[in-house]
Amino acid sequence: MSKPKGFEKPIGVKDYLPHAVAKLRRIEHEVLTCMRGWGYEQILTPTIEYYDTVGVASATSDQKLFKLLNQRGTTIVLRSDVTAPIARVASSLLKDHPFPLRLSYHANVFRAFEEEAGREAEFFQTGVELIGDPSPEADAEVIALAIASLKAAGVPSFKIAVGHVGFLNGLFGDTLPGRAEAQERLKECLLQRDYVGYRTVLGELRLEESVHRELEGLLRLRGGQEICERALELRVSEGAREAIRHLCEMWDVLGAYGVQDHVLIDLTMIGDISYYTGMTFEGYASQLGFPVCSGGRYDNLLAQFGRPAPATGFALKTTRMLEVAEVGQEEPTRALIRYTPGRRREALEKAAGLRAEGLAVVTEGIAQIGDGLNAGAGDALASPEAKAGSYEYKGAIYDQVFTFDEKGGDPR
Amino acid sequence: MSKPKGFEKPIGVKDYLPHAVAKLRRIEHEVLTCMRGWGYEQILTPTIEYYDTVGVASATSDQKLFKLLNQRGTTIVLRSDVTAPIARVASSLLKDHPFPLRLSYHANVFRAFEEEAGREAEFFQTGVELIGDPSPEADAEVIALAIASLKAAGVPSFKIAVGHVGFLNGLFGDTLPGRAEAQERLKECLLQRDYVGYRTVLGELRLEESVHRELEGLLRLRGGQEICERALELRVSEGAREAIRHLCEMWDVLGAYGVQDHVLIDLTMIGDISYYTGMTFEGYASQLGFPVCSGGRYDNLLAQFGRPAPATGFALKTTRMLEVAEVGQEEPTRALIRYTPGRRREALEKAAGLRAEGLAVVTEGIAQIGDGLNAGAGDALASPEAKAGSYEYKGAIYDQVFTFDEKGGDPR
Repeated sequence: MSKPKGFEKPIGVKDYLPHAVAKLRRIEHEVLTCMRGWGYEQILTPTIEYYDTVGVASATSDQKLFKLLNQRGTTIVLRSDVTAPIARVASSLLKDHPFPLRLSYHANVFRAFEEEAGREAEFFQTGVELIGDPSPEADAEVIALAIASLKAAGVPSFKIAVGHVGFLNGLFGDTLPGRAEAQERLKECLLQRDYVGYRTVLGELRLEESVHRELEGLLRLRGGQEICERALELRVSEGAREAIRHLCEMWDVLGAYGVQDHVLIDLTMIGDISYYTGMTFEGYASQLGFPVCSGGRYDNLLAQFGRPAPATGFALKTTRMLEVAEVGQEEPTRALIRYTPGRRREALEKAAGLRAEGLAVVTEGIAQIGDGLNAGAGDALASPEAKAGSYEYKGAIYDQVFTFDEKGGDPR
Repeated sequence: MSKPKGFEKPIGVKDYLPHAVAKLRRIEHEVLTCMRGWGYEQILTPTIEYYDTVGVASATSDQKLFKLLNQRGTTIVLRSDVTAPIARVASSLLKDHPFPLRLSYHANVFRAFEEEAGREAEFFQTGVELIGDPSPEADAEVIALAIASLKAAGVPSFKIAVGHVGFLNGLFGDTLPGRAEAQERLKECLLQRDYVGYRTVLGELRLEESVHRELEGLLRLRGGQEICERALELRVSEGAREAIRHLCEMWDVLGAYGVQDHVLIDLTMIGDISYYTGMTFEGYASQLGFPVCSGGRYDNLLAQFGRPAPATGFALKTTRMLEVAEVGQEEPTRALIRYTPGRRREALEKAAGLRAEGLAVVTEGIAQIGDGLNAGAGDALASPEAKAGSYEYKGAIYDQVFTFDEKGGDPR
């Protein structure tokens, strides 16, 4: 173990400078306001949880959990998602609140990527959970809200791919009964979106002609409404069929929301989160190679905390959206007010007045006028009155500059 | 070590339910907007830092640092304040940005109070740092901004007590030269605000009459402008005198800000933060027994990160202010829209329209009208049109209820 150097931060975490923070906070505000418009109310859970409770129940695979030892030797996890903590709250503090519960959050989450440079160990998620409603309406609501949230965040172009874990499990169970390893190999290819590998594995399995055709046909079950109809024609058992009917109903509701254009049905989609039990989805922005949101139905998680209930939700990967989001920055007009001691009160009153009007005002006391003016300020500051324009002074840009000095009655 | 139980959270951390979160976020928004108005721009630093860098430089005493071991055996700290991380950023990412730097933050911070039930191990701070300006103007600016921030947060009544570490160190050094232990005992009493104990210790020290009188007189150096004048009359060395002159100038600037009414000079005040070098202050809300903000000048911290610079700043204890802050909650009007499948599209269009107007709208698909109406909804839901009022349904309160069913053309 080598000692960290002077300014070193732990690997995978970063500092955000004002421009990035302003944008991140703008996205956060727009998205949370959107979620509030759909009746979702914010909750806040701790950054740290016990590994043995929320850690184990979380969706994050064990080796990606950010585990730490506290001074008593107990394993602590830095929260890896907010879904499991919300399940804990729904089952404890909110246990007497009737369903459905609509909750939202904006929080930093953590992954153990310390060994992998370039992966983020801490990032922000903004999401919702809809707990206590098993219906296709509920699943459609969270997808429609994900779409509304991506729009609110200013993501200019995106698609949502929707699949169903229950359908995939049914299909593989029906076609490859008792062959757990073969099922896992195929699912792993789907998870990686490696269709070439999927076909290779299929070939190696030396399946009956009809089974081979059906499993290869899965790769073509991606598209719009017609996919639901084609999937219903498959010779699958009732479980898989039920999953498809659920998706079809959901598709209809998405039509009523007017958002079908943003949605693809993709029956090869397998959520990478272990607790999903039904519909799962991911959102892709056209400029990015990774999902900007993911979600799905998790009907078994709440039971782990003692209050069994169906649930569905999603999280936006807020930090990742920084690159693509086009949100207005709402930058205030910036003013600089410089003053000599004798006119301090006037100058600070002027500052207070401009702040009340919404300007961002920096004040600076100076010994005498001319002080520091040559140090980067240029002639602009010597102008006889406040002027609109763009002035650079000590590394900052100002739209307006006022000078209160001893020489005259009015600011110059 | 006993295994944590079902829903247990680590000791000292808590969940915040929607009402509290709404208030906390409102305070956060108002305070950050206020800080932006004074030219301070937000930055964001990681939750975790290495103990050997930022941990050691932080203001928090070693036993209160939230220390954890990562999987490589390196000691990690959960951030205990944002001042030290900002010093790191000012000296690295922002090393080419000229001074002064005005930075703000809102962040959760951590303390190792796991053993002490009732103390908060995680809480929020909202604060600023003004780096690169040694003047009394800069100290007055952060105090005036602290006052503006407390007002923005809706704290109805508060006072700021201002002292000076340099004065205290000078006074004790002059009167008790070479008697480090005696100095420490007296300072400890001041830190605890235990004036009875202070007098007791003074008695035990058996000092010369004039020294005893001077040190006891310190306890009366609390008040307004007159304190500055009285302190200047003390027979202290140049260091302590310089400190008082700085305070007097600061007091004048606070007058120009028009905020002297909120400020007391209290020369017994000793910041509990080890890195303070000059003026220190604490804000007290009249209803609370603990400070709601604290700050001070720390001219030696930046040097630890390789960019020596004077600096001053403060942090509001945002979570603690929840109890006393009176901020408008900005609650949206809440509407419930229920619909049968045949009128889904109309109902969801109505919801979209109301959301665009700023309402919070919950929708619910129902099999047929009457469904669930008896389960807590009462007659209100059966009313023939949308009505303003207060309706309780499934644990939530709505201002308006709309029903779209098969029986008529209009919502009922």
